[in-house]
Amino acid sequence: MIEPIRWNTDHLLLIDQLKLPMVEVWVEIRDLHQGAAAIKDMIVRGAPAIGVTAAYTYALAFQNKAYSKDYAAEVRSILVATRPTAVNLFWAVDEMEKVAEANQSNLYDSLLEHAKKIHSDDISMNKKIGTHALSLFPKKLKVLTHCNAGSLATGGYGTALGVIYSAFAEGLVEKVWVDETRPFLQGARLTAYELQKAGVPNTLICDNMSASLMAKGEIDLVVVGSDRIAANGDVANKIGTYALAVLCQYHKIPFYVAAPSSTIDFDMVSGDDIPIEERAKSELGVFNGKQIVHDLENIYNPGFDVSPCHLVSGIITEQQVHHFPYIKSLQSCK
Amino acid sequence: MIEPIRWNTDHLLLIDQLKLPMVEVWVEIRDLHQGAAAIKDMIVRGAPAIGVTAAYTYALAFQNKAYSKDYAAEVRSILVATRPTAVNLFWAVDEMEKVAEANQSNLYDSLLEHAKKIHSDDISMNKKIGTHALSLFPKKLKVLTHCNAGSLATGGYGTALGVIYSAFAEGLVEKVWVDETRPFLQGARLTAYELQKAGVPNTLICDNMSASLMAKGEIDLVVVGSDRIAANGDVANKIGTYALAVLCQYHKIPFYVAAPSSTIDFDMVSGDDIPIEERAKSELGVFNGKQIVHDLENIYNPGFDVSPCHLVSGIITEQQVHHFPYIKSLQSCK
Repeated sequence: MIEPIRWNTDHLLLIDQLKLPMVEVWVEIRDLHQGAAAIKDMIVRGAPAIGVTAAYTYALAFQNKAYSKDYAAEVRSILVATRPTAVNLFWAVDEMEKVAEANQSNLYDSLLEHAKKIHSDDISMNKKIGTHALSLFPKKLKVLTHCNAGSLATGGYGTALGVIYSAFAEGLVEKVWVDETRPFLQGARLTAYELQKAGVPNTLICDNMSASLMAKGEIDLVVVGSDRIAANGDVANKIGTYALAVLCQYHKIPFYVAAPSSTIDFDMVSGDDIPIEERAKSELGVFNGKQIVHDLENIYNPGFDVSPCHLVSGIITEQQVHHFPYIKSLQSCK
Repeated sequence: MIEPIRWNTDHLLLIDQLKLPMVEVWVEIRDLHQGAAAIKDMIVRGAPAIGVTAAYTYALAFQNKAYSKDYAAEVRSILVATRPTAVNLFWAVDEMEKVAEANQSNLYDSLLEHAKKIHSDDISMNKKIGTHALSLFPKKLKVLTHCNAGSLATGGYGTALGVIYSAFAEGLVEKVWVDETRPFLQGARLTAYELQKAGVPNTLICDNMSASLMAKGEIDLVVVGSDRIAANGDVANKIGTYALAVLCQYHKIPFYVAAPSSTIDFDMVSGDDIPIEERAKSELGVFNGKQIVHDLENIYNPGFDVSPCHLVSGIITEQQVHHFPYIKSLQSCK
């Protein structure tokens, strides 16, 4: 399995996700500015993976520096400016700041230790999700996933792909169907690659092919990650997820969401409250730098959609498998 | 509106569909070999469009030639070798052969006249489909279509896009959502372009975005073409069509199929009998000549899927709008 984030004695190694899947290039991060650039330029992506990278980078910022309030403020401002909407980024910087303030005599070692803890905590949480999910595999199943909620999006192991890795290790996965996930092709570029590296049998399809596979009995279970879950269990995730939720209901196929409890946003009463990011039209109209449509204006490119909770067979967190109605069960994650 | 096939005094003009949508190049066809190459190389595609092109090419083959059984056999063999699975190609060559045998004194003029008739018959059939479909637009609607069943796939006007053109002319189309139609992108490259040229407001989306638009009430009606319709009304069409049929049922949106009655294959009792072509893996894994996935082997690429008749709100032929159960109604097209 890919470990996309590795600490190596005195520096961080990141797999360059911009160059995947055609080449596997490791980037050395030795200081604050290299770490910040790696996040900003999307060498690393996925909210949990960004949080872990920010924590290590925070430690690196104090490798040869004493603590000062001014310098700590500078480190924060450089890090949080990289991807201003990533919640895990702010959370990780807050955590590291607390450790820095409390351990000024043994600064770098304390920070490095805490960064390693944030990293290993993220992986153990994903492994717990994977363990809870085993109860959802009564036998060897053919599984479909959408987008990339794998090692590459987290500290390691992954959420939706973590479920698949855990079940595969127990002999409970026959094969994985991978949606290519237009327009950004996270499935084709990242998930297919990750599963291949982990030795999990997989087949890539276009997003519009899953329905006919369902009709033919070729899909037994669908599992996806989530970007945000409302208090009632409505799930925001990569565009195309909602279509899968409806298709699963029609074909009587279980549809699961795997995500750490930190994904639940209790301020959102339902999915109606979740803002949906509209992304650049060029993601659809330009490919590998080449324009592929006549008109770049008449394009609509929402990044996410919302699957209503009644279509979700279960939400798998590090605590348990939650079932509909979700509102009470999810409160236990608060 | 685009007229992709035009007769110009003594030669045929074809819009080069390989170069669309970025440039509009017209190719001159002046003899048998140029016409055959245009079909083989897919300068022209879409079964009805291939039939019309073959008819004109047959006429061109006799522009300066007297009739002989041997030469007629040579013309046939060159034409039918171009795209061996296109039913309309065989049909058009058969038709032209009959005319040639019966009119040896006035050969070229008779052939040209008949090619023009095949061409105009195809367009009138599409216009009849469009007229019948008007009853399905009780008011101005937002319509979604998949793949390209337009002017570019036919002698002109189109089947599914013909429905849209007819309704738009009557002020009954607010806008058209165009699925990009992975992997070959017929929606993005051809349908969006065609609608743009015809002045019909349209917006391109990825195939995985239609479900969330349906949930938001942004789609009132879906209309697609068909490659083959079974005797019971099951519809084979471009991969992704079946997902739309299921999503339409869930969202209570009418789902229509527009096709000439020649599309009905009475030898197929149901959609289970219709063979589904599996296409090259490279259509998914290679884009603009550049490999975009790690592994080109683990790919599945079915070209078509089957939508069961009970999900189809109506089948619009040049004769009428047929409704479920289809088995009797479609027999009238025999």
